[in-house]
Amino acid sequence: MMESSHDQLYCIRHSLAHVMAQAVLELRPNAKLAFGPPIDNGCYYDFDFDTPLTHDDFKAIEKNMRKIIGQRQPFAASKRSAAEAVEYLKARGETYKVEYCLELAARGETEIGFYTNGPFEDMCAGPHLEHTGQIPPDCFTIDALAGAYWRGDEKNKQLTRIYCLAFKNKDDLKSYIEKRELARERDHRKLGKELELFLISDVVGPGLPLWTPNGTAIREALETFAKEQEARYGYVRVATPHIAKENLYYTSGHLPYYKDSMFPPMELEGECAYYMKAMNCPHHHIIFGHRPRSYRELPLRFAEYGTVYRYEDSGSLSGLLRVRSIAQNDAHIYCTLDQVKDELKATFNMTLDYYKKFRFENIKVRFSTHDPANKDKFVDNPELWAFSEKIVKEVVDELKVDHILGVGEAAFYGPKLDFQATTMLGREESISTTQLDFAQPINFDLTYIGDDGRQHRPYIIHRAPLGAHERFIAFLIEHFGGAFPTWMAPIQARIIPVNAEVTNYAKEIESILREKLIRVELDSSDNSFNKKIREAVTRKIPNMAIIGHKEAEQGTVTLRRYCTQEQITLSKDEFVSRLARLIRLRTMDNFADEAV
Amino acid sequence: MMESSHDQLYCIRHSLAHVMAQAVLELRPNAKLAFGPPIDNGCYYDFDFDTPLTHDDFKAIEKNMRKIIGQRQPFAASKRSAAEAVEYLKARGETYKVEYCLELAARGETEIGFYTNGPFEDMCAGPHLEHTGQIPPDCFTIDALAGAYWRGDEKNKQLTRIYCLAFKNKDDLKSYIEKRELARERDHRKLGKELELFLISDVVGPGLPLWTPNGTAIREALETFAKEQEARYGYVRVATPHIAKENLYYTSGHLPYYKDSMFPPMELEGECAYYMKAMNCPHHHIIFGHRPRSYRELPLRFAEYGTVYRYEDSGSLSGLLRVRSIAQNDAHIYCTLDQVKDELKATFNMTLDYYKKFRFENIKVRFSTHDPANKDKFVDNPELWAFSEKIVKEVVDELKVDHILGVGEAAFYGPKLDFQATTMLGREESISTTQLDFAQPINFDLTYIGDDGRQHRPYIIHRAPLGAHERFIAFLIEHFGGAFPTWMAPIQARIIPVNAEVTNYAKEIESILREKLIRVELDSSDNSFNKKIREAVTRKIPNMAIIGHKEAEQGTVTLRRYCTQEQITLSKDEFVSRLARLIRLRTMDNFADEAV
Repeated sequence: MMESSHDQLYCIRHSLAHVMAQAVLELRPNAKLAFGPPIDNGCYYDFDFDTPLTHDDFKAIEKNMRKIIGQRQPFAASKRSAAEAVEYLKARGETYKVEYCLELAARGETEIGFYTNGPFEDMCAGPHLEHTGQIPPDCFTIDALAGAYWRGDEKNKQLTRIYCLAFKNKDDLKSYIEKRELARERDHRKLGKELELFLISDVVGPGLPLWTPNGTAIREALETFAKEQEARYGYVRVATPHIAKENLYYTSGHLPYYKDSMFPPMELEGECAYYMKAMNCPHHHIIFGHRPRSYRELPLRFAEYGTVYRYEDSGSLSGLLRVRSIAQNDAHIYCTLDQVKDELKATFNMTLDYYKKFRFENIKVRFSTHDPANKDKFVDNPELWAFSEKIVKEVVDELKVDHILGVGEAAFYGPKLDFQATTMLGREESISTTQLDFAQPINFDLTYIGDDGRQHRPYIIHRAPLGAHERFIAFLIEHFGGAFPTWMAPIQARIIPVNAEVTNYAKEIESILREKLIRVELDSSDNSFNKKIREAVTRKIPNMAIIGHKEAEQGTVTLRRYCTQEQITLSKDEFVSRLARLIRLRTMDNFADEAV
Repeated sequence: MMESSHDQLYCIRHSLAHVMAQAVLELRPNAKLAFGPPIDNGCYYDFDFDTPLTHDDFKAIEKNMRKIIGQRQPFAASKRSAAEAVEYLKARGETYKVEYCLELAARGETEIGFYTNGPFEDMCAGPHLEHTGQIPPDCFTIDALAGAYWRGDEKNKQLTRIYCLAFKNKDDLKSYIEKRELARERDHRKLGKELELFLISDVVGPGLPLWTPNGTAIREALETFAKEQEARYGYVRVATPHIAKENLYYTSGHLPYYKDSMFPPMELEGECAYYMKAMNCPHHHIIFGHRPRSYRELPLRFAEYGTVYRYEDSGSLSGLLRVRSIAQNDAHIYCTLDQVKDELKATFNMTLDYYKKFRFENIKVRFSTHDPANKDKFVDNPELWAFSEKIVKEVVDELKVDHILGVGEAAFYGPKLDFQATTMLGREESISTTQLDFAQPINFDLTYIGDDGRQHRPYIIHRAPLGAHERFIAFLIEHFGGAFPTWMAPIQARIIPVNAEVTNYAKEIESILREKLIRVELDSSDNSFNKKIREAVTRKIPNMAIIGHKEAEQGTVTLRRYCTQEQITLSKDEFVSRLARLIRLRTMDNFADEAV
């Protein structure tokens, strides 16, 4: 995002764009200039070259730029009338600038701003530094070349864009480059491929990940964790189909409002249209409502890791972060008014317990309310809005939760609390949401018989602390850099025999682990010992079980940990029970301080 | 099904139809006769009454029938020309018989058969007993009334059908009635409702079961069992989306041939048509084929409890037995030719291990081969058919498996072995299938690099020992009569405090069990102790934990078992570890001999 105030850094970046253009023109005097703005990590400039530029030219450009900086060229603003400006730019052969200048004139601009520094002059509104000498000579670097259409329109000529990274000083530049490198290394798409976690096949369709055995192991580890936690919190599980008649979605209010986000209907001859579900709630409400309910049954907490389908535009799909099939850690809590606050608090605590377990940093809570002015976006029931928002407010106050207020960002059926975490790379990501719903019980005419013998409306809480598998695992891949703790790791242990003579003992260890349902692999290749270790490390397998002659003779195993590189020889039984304990306790042994 | 040979029982049933008609006419002389054939549990006769009949008339009809039997009326065959027959029936006012007789005449029949016994004469081709006295007077009973359209066409008048059960003797009749009663008691639709296992909602759609918490607990118990077994057998798990581009199904060969069984396509604007998957294999093949494979990776066994969607005609849907959403215990084994036999044997043994565990009786194996004469139904590759069928034949021979041969019943891509079990009610049901597939590897161009460095085609085994959740759980509900073993039971233990004074101790037991992830319920109602017990028994909950004052004082629990009604007082720890052991070992404690 562009810095909103024209501060020092903005001016450095803006001025650097001019310096870079001047430097490039020294190498390619015939180049025509297009646009060259500052951006959030530096600046770029678009050129139309007769002789193409390459990476090899970067050094020469930077050298010219540092020379220009050394010359402390002052920036001077001036103005021309629109007509004069056009003539001037025409004379210089700047056809792109001419076109833009004519457009400005047509829009009614009478005066056009220019900036000069040294021999370089550019049409520009500023602001700039006082002189080029104010640019720290080591705060920038030419970063990359890319193709870019004039005015971003693919019908126009493709120009060459030169990106320049620029920060306040050398340290900031270095830190940005390191972070970006780490982000590239940890990108879930890159790691997903290297560690074979999932694939997206054009034959099956965009946005529809196929989870390979490694990725599925992670999904199932998460799912089992969620199921156990939810069982302890008193949830029960349901399982519902992935489709329903269209009328269900008219009842819920998702049709027609949400239609664009749903897959197109399947028309069943002689019946009606069926839709793939884009959310699990309507199915759960049907289960709740299929027979009379008593207050004795409440709170009733229906959980399902349900896969929903959303029709995202194919252009917006990206890795696991934006997909069309979404396996949600979903649940709906049906409760009485008296129970709402306690259930919200329990949900809140459960959510934070998860994030603490996964060691997410800087969790932010966003309390989203409705916007009374926006009648189209929210159910029209001022009384229930006020009441529901008051409940949630009381909950965050009583729990003393720091939160940001998001007016107008509620769900259409009630207020919500969103949880955001910061990735190891400093990026903020929404992970989960908890919503209080007063509208769906009315839409589905859900009731229970109270202890007064009368019918009452339940409240519903929608919650998904682990979000969806796709987003959450994308987040975890980057959070862990692909090095999962033993309990989640696709391969929990790889057995590495030093040579073929100890194969039998290695196989014995393998079958003991497999019988204990530990995900184990035996490296029975002909590779050298060192290569076997390297391969296991590349795969980020948390535990290597090294089997040499001594181990085979003494019935031991030398355990080498991925994260700490600690190496320790254990008896067979100790080794097995150590792995089993890491898994049973879900130890986050990929963090050094838990890697016991 | 109608008995194919006209044996003694057929003649008894056929003659009883005439005896019943004669007996009914004595009560309703104006009734008009329609058809009255023998059926597989007796016979029926359709009447057009001016005064309706009720259940109260059954006794009188039976009394008349026994009187007719006592009269030993001889059956005598005769013939009339078609014209004479029409005249004769018209004269008697038998309008339905006249219509049918005219139809026979129009079809070219010149002579029409009649049978007389005593005062009753009916148009009939026979055969019959010699006389009514040959019908055992206690081998039959009037069973039911039903409406039935003349000629089965709802545009025609609705007649009254009277059903009569009839067997060779009193014992056979009694045994049939008992079995039918048991079948009704155990019908998975009835028990499914009583025990709240699933529901089918017209709002969601026919054939799309929604699994309530109780049913979902059973699904997940089965799924976890399957996952553990499969892990021990060296399977890995995958997870794939429920939809794919239509082209995938052209590649697999399912389109256009299988189109009628698939849900209609969803047309994505600017993209193509997407189908819901009706089988998991194409998705698995995409995972296998997405990168080069080495012989070192084989056999590669991809398992997924994948939900597929099949467009069954709404009229043919029935409970869980015939549905549109099917959660298959699916897996595909990719292996080399050398591995095929061992993999088939392992699959065979795994399947039988399951069935032994569940105590299924009389497992039958059906070996289905292709029919060379039917080119449309089977992939045209005589060589590979011969070869594949030889492999499967060798497997069943080497394992010494008794089997039935089903020529022409193979899958379109290869031979298969089907497993059938007999329900407790004597009904045979197909439970699972194992298929050898040589065709899909060709369709998907699947290869692996052999140890010779060359490309080879893998073989694929499709297998689903536990079939689909829907069919398999329907089978289990009837097999167990709804009384599930502890490890599968929706509620594994119900805590029954004798009164409110022991509530705290009861809650303590509840939370200990819940912490151990045992599915527990505390009956905190105001009901009497006996009513609490009765309710738990009605719910077929395998373990009742009775908490009285003595238990609360001594820190014990009195465990009462559903199946044996055994009652034993255990220390708290013994009680908890006993339940935990039943669950961990998956003891079939709903069978008396395992109910330790």
